[in-house]
Amino acid sequence: MNFGSDNYAGAHSAITASLAKHATGYATPYSTSDLDLAVQRRFSTIFERDVAVFYVATGTASNSLALASFAKPGGIVLAHHEAHIVVDECGAPEYLSNQIRIVPVKGSHGKMDSAHLCKQAKRITGLDVHGGRLNAISVTQPTENGTVYSLEELETIAKIAIDHKVPLHMDGARFANGLVSLGCSPAEMTWKRGVDILSFGGTKNGCWCAEAVVIFDIEKAREFGFIQKRAAQLFSKSRFVSAQFEAYLENDLWIDLARHSNKMAADLADTFSHSLSSRLIRTPQANEVFVILEKNTIALLESNSVVFSIWPASDELEIRDDEQLCRFVTSFETTEDDINRFRSLII
Amino acid sequence: MNFGSDNYAGAHSAITASLAKHATGYATPYSTSDLDLAVQRRFSTIFERDVAVFYVATGTASNSLALASFAKPGGIVLAHHEAHIVVDECGAPEYLSNQIRIVPVKGSHGKMDSAHLCKQAKRITGLDVHGGRLNAISVTQPTENGTVYSLEELETIAKIAIDHKVPLHMDGARFANGLVSLGCSPAEMTWKRGVDILSFGGTKNGCWCAEAVVIFDIEKAREFGFIQKRAAQLFSKSRFVSAQFEAYLENDLWIDLARHSNKMAADLADTFSHSLSSRLIRTPQANEVFVILEKNTIALLESNSVVFSIWPASDELEIRDDEQLCRFVTSFETTEDDINRFRSLII
Amino acid sequence: MNFGSDNYAGAHSAITASLAKHATGYATPYSTSDLDLAVQRRFSTIFERDVAVFYVATGTASNSLALASFAKPGGIVLAHHEAHIVVDECGAPEYLSNQIRIVPVKGSHGKMDSAHLCKQAKRITGLDVHGGRLNAISVTQPTENGTVYSLEELETIAKIAIDHKVPLHMDGARFANGLVSLGCSPAEMTWKRGVDILSFGGTKNGCWCAEAVVIFDIEKAREFGFIQKRAAQLFSKSRFVSAQFEAYLENDLWIDLARHSNKMAADLADTFSHSLSSRLIRTPQANEVFVILEKNTIALLESNSVVFSIWPASDELEIRDDEQLCRFVTSFETTEDDINRFRSLII
Amino acid sequence: MNFGSDNYAGAHSAITASLAKHATGYATPYSTSDLDLAVQRRFSTIFERDVAVFYVATGTASNSLALASFAKPGGIVLAHHEAHIVVDECGAPEYLSNQIRIVPVKGSHGKMDSAHLCKQAKRITGLDVHGGRLNAISVTQPTENGTVYSLEELETIAKIAIDHKVPLHMDGARFANGLVSLGCSPAEMTWKRGVDILSFGGTKNGCWCAEAVVIFDIEKAREFGFIQKRAAQLFSKSRFVSAQFEAYLENDLWIDLARHSNKMAADLADTFSHSLSSRLIRTPQANEVFVILEKNTIALLESNSVVFSIWPASDELEIRDDEQLCRFVTSFETTEDDINRFRSLII
Repeated sequence: MNFGSDNYAGAHSAITASLAKHATGYATPYSTSDLDLAVQRRFSTIFERDVAVFYVATGTASNSLALASFAKPGGIVLAHHEAHIVVDECGAPEYLSNQIRIVPVKGSHGKMDSAHLCKQAKRITGLDVHGGRLNAISVTQPTENGTVYSLEELETIAKIAIDHKVPLHMDGARFANGLVSLGCSPAEMTWKRGVDILSFGGTKNGCWCAEAVVIFDIEKAREFGFIQKRAAQLFSKSRFVSAQFEAYLENDLWIDLARHSNKMAADLADTFSHSLSSRLIRTPQANEVFVILEKNTIALLESNSVVFSIWPASDELEIRDDEQLCRFVTSFETTEDDINRFRSLII
Repeated sequence: MNFGSDNYAGAHSAITASLAKHATGYATPYSTSDLDLAVQRRFSTIFERDVAVFYVATGTASNSLALASFAKPGGIVLAHHEAHIVVDECGAPEYLSNQIRIVPVKGSHGKMDSAHLCKQAKRITGLDVHGGRLNAISVTQPTENGTVYSLEELETIAKIAIDHKVPLHMDGARFANGLVSLGCSPAEMTWKRGVDILSFGGTKNGCWCAEAVVIFDIEKAREFGFIQKRAAQLFSKSRFVSAQFEAYLENDLWIDLARHSNKMAADLADTFSHSLSSRLIRTPQANEVFVILEKNTIALLESNSVVFSIWPASDELEIRDDEQLCRFVTSFETTEDDINRFRSLII
Repeated sequence: MNFGSDNYAGAHSAITASLAKHATGYATPYSTSDLDLAVQRRFSTIFERDVAVFYVATGTASNSLALASFAKPGGIVLAHHEAHIVVDECGAPEYLSNQIRIVPVKGSHGKMDSAHLCKQAKRITGLDVHGGRLNAISVTQPTENGTVYSLEELETIAKIAIDHKVPLHMDGARFANGLVSLGCSPAEMTWKRGVDILSFGGTKNGCWCAEAVVIFDIEKAREFGFIQKRAAQLFSKSRFVSAQFEAYLENDLWIDLARHSNKMAADLADTFSHSLSSRLIRTPQANEVFVILEKNTIALLESNSVVFSIWPASDELEIRDDEQLCRFVTSFETTEDDINRFRSLII
Repeated sequence: MNFGSDNYAGAHSAITASLAKHATGYATPYSTSDLDLAVQRRFSTIFERDVAVFYVATGTASNSLALASFAKPGGIVLAHHEAHIVVDECGAPEYLSNQIRIVPVKGSHGKMDSAHLCKQAKRITGLDVHGGRLNAISVTQPTENGTVYSLEELETIAKIAIDHKVPLHMDGARFANGLVSLGCSPAEMTWKRGVDILSFGGTKNGCWCAEAVVIFDIEKAREFGFIQKRAAQLFSKSRFVSAQFEAYLENDLWIDLARHSNKMAADLADTFSHSLSSRLIRTPQANEVFVILEKNTIALLESNSVVFSIWPASDELEIRDDEQLCRFVTSFETTEDDINRFRSLII
């Protein structure tokens, strides 16, 4: 059983088949082939408006270049203090976006507290160059804590961005998992709520390497090609990404895979809730389960080759010396049998 | 017939099969899986010494991060004035390597003139901060003009790097084509000649997306992981690259594919040499053919759906008004039938 | 009466005289003149060891290039959350030092809490590239809150830096004020405590524009010339800074000026402590006084042309709606008469 | 006799007196004092339109931030191959302006050949991201070779910039020397010819440290404050620069000083033209004299403590083995007596 991360899984068979299907013949490179253009149109269909789509190598690249596309001298981006761009990207967003700085916003369960966000935004007036100026707000959906912002919560954050005349970025590394959780359309979770630019991730949900920056106002996408190439993120054989996305977006495969992994996470959480040696932090809303386990339970699981992560606990959590916070991630590869076998181990 | 570029081709069937083979099951991400480690060992075998290997998204990334790994404040890299890092990477090497500058070196047929290289290197003494200081020399093998440095020529350049105590980088976007052309081993064309760091390209020779930075002194590879992640070039599902390289390096597939495309280029050049409406610039040594064509020949080819590129001519070339310089690139997909059909068009 | 900031004052007459004295005749530029070298030796005498000294334009430049001289890819600098490099430099340290990030450390009265510093340092293990790695610790002496670290406190911080094998930087924009406050020698407050690199400020204490980066291990200063020039911080007529420092360091002028301004701050604080409409936050240890004033007192002062700053209050401070936090800064120009007149206004 | 560079001289007595005059009393910092504002207005008067003026520390900073203010991803600046920004600034323009690259333009006597400039501009179409895009043209007036572009020559260059819709930057490190040479007004040599942004240097012409970026369209100056602060180039006690400029611009002092140094250069050139052991490269148009001297003449001068520079010769110059190219620079400090004594040495 492997709950290490959704990037421990490989690629879905439909993705693999699509790569084989499109491997032969010639195609123009650099996102100009017929397949590339067809997939770009598909994105527009899915988002119910003309969008600009750019493929990049990693989720970190997606976030970094998205923020770069808006970056201003002295610019500050506000994001949750546990956001991927804050703690997991080795400074790439700052490096690749010409020195924006990311100032952390507080908030429980991985979500920015809107009052604190508002306060932080107001502090950065930009009237005085010394303090810098607000440049963008970045929201992660679903969050790094496995929670999902409601549409109302997204709208509240978007309003703050609008009030300060700055763009709103969404880190959607697990976009499909959030979408399934809310049961809404891609448009409803993004531009209809005020999102200007999206990191759309496919890798964690069954692709090999399929990450895209989606810009909702195509007029604002004109500079992006230069930003992408300057960052060495312009694939030559771009159809290898398009082939993945074609299969991914076909017949709602992406939705089905995300629904499956969310369901597996819910089942896993349910299992924990029946175990005396575990304390579930919260009901998962996507495909990540955070739970406090007794150390001997951890040892038991490890001795049974269950893969998962010990997770750094925030200061607020009360964790006993014989416990540790753990993270379990499900994916399209997780099976009901995995869950059943897991249940038999801890209950 | 498509001679547009070797990145117009897709992926070789063995590459596709390997991706399918490795798609299932779990594997640790970020270049730590068993397959990743096996492929890294394979690189060491091929290069006859322990090497450090890092996958990146593009050839531009490979060059940029290779140069970044040595970059110093005020650093200057010397490279041929038509090198890919000079004219085709939108400033990525400078951007991603913390502001090295690339100063062009003259030389005919895409090769640096060693006397001019020597002179340029001596000018940048570094005794005075204003002028900056020599940081590295970068050589492209094969060159952008389809020529291949001999081992002696490489050694001459390496000696200049050694004399100035700076590293030598090799842009090997078409590494296999150069290797086949010289008929030597990978070690002989690289570290045995004085190359310190290599951009090893697989994409143009039958892979989907397989580019690696190879560092020959593993002691000098310690910082690279941070440079790679900071540039958003660390793949999570790294086995998708390893799967490509596994097949690519298996049973000399890479050598066979390069030998084939070089042969096709030679045949194409031979064809041009028998045409009255074309003037071959030089005998190709790898898989690129540069030829001056009469404009009505160009029109004829285009009307027959032959894909190739009109190429910017350097000032030295004498080109009549009714002619244009053209580039034809062959690949693993090029067939003898393509060449035969092409011959029937122009002779 | 002007308590706006110590940069509202001009230059001490001895500084002006020295500029006039050295204005005539020829001198080699770029910190190579006889006067430049003499002043550099003077710094070595003052610090009781051979030090390397580099002039830069601003305190922000001094901090930024000091941090740049140690910067590594993925590097993180720990500093107090109210440090100048965090809130007042528009991202210059990050921009000019090749993308270090500054992670804030908590602590009251402007001083880093050593337990929290230790915890933050331990979190950044660098074992995993995603999280980055600890690159340096930066301490401000005196702090932005007008407090001064004791030698023991500095040593505790230095020990954490040593334990993690990272350099310790000191922002000494008001270095002399801290020195006078502790009554120790420059060596005792810096390298004898473990400081590796110092931003030595003269501007706020009677110079026009005299800021220097002091590197205590001259072996580590070799790259700095390139860092300085690359950042456009290498003055041509460097003797104009040397002339200022010559007078500044002559006959302990710098110490006398700092002693005076500290004394004026103490007197001002004493004045506030006798006023019913003011609540002194803390006894000043240098030349900055932080006090909560009633709004009508603020109005009274402003109507009498007293210049000072309304200051952003941290969340911990309890401030009534009819109050505001204020900052008063004294300088070499502040006179006892200023204090007396001020006293007559508020008591 | 010192002809080392115009930065070997100190400051003119009027500059020193102005610093003394403005040293006392309080003034708001960061270019907001009454004196600062008065000097800014003075610049507008001199340039016959409202201009935005920003002080920076060095000429290199001035050029770098001027180019930064227009910089775009993938941007390329065209400049003469011997321009200061190309050979003498250690990469600062690239570093501080977010990765513009500078592509050299050929031309004799330090001036860009307009035909080659035009050709280079046309090559960078920007239609394809790989090659980058034209971002600005930079012209040095007077040039590094002591020549001065005529108004017609400036207009020709400006027209190329306008045709390509990019801004024109002028490096005016020795602006006054060029102005005196042409005998025109500051407006005529800048915005009336199409210059958008100017590096206005005072340091080499009698100031200590007085460099300003002048932006002719104040609407385009809005971002500059952030660019300046982020680069650590915002002086706190800005009046120390204003005090210099006040005296510098008063009663045409700057013009008189430049006229004097140009006259001294002309006299020096005249002297060389009468010497059998020297070959004047060209008649100086500003305050720099380039001459080929026999090595025994060089030795004679050095034994008489004459300070000047051996200069790197371009490939076109024919220089015998017993000769070297030399540069002599005059300044406001150069006297007729210097020239007379020099004449007695070499004739």
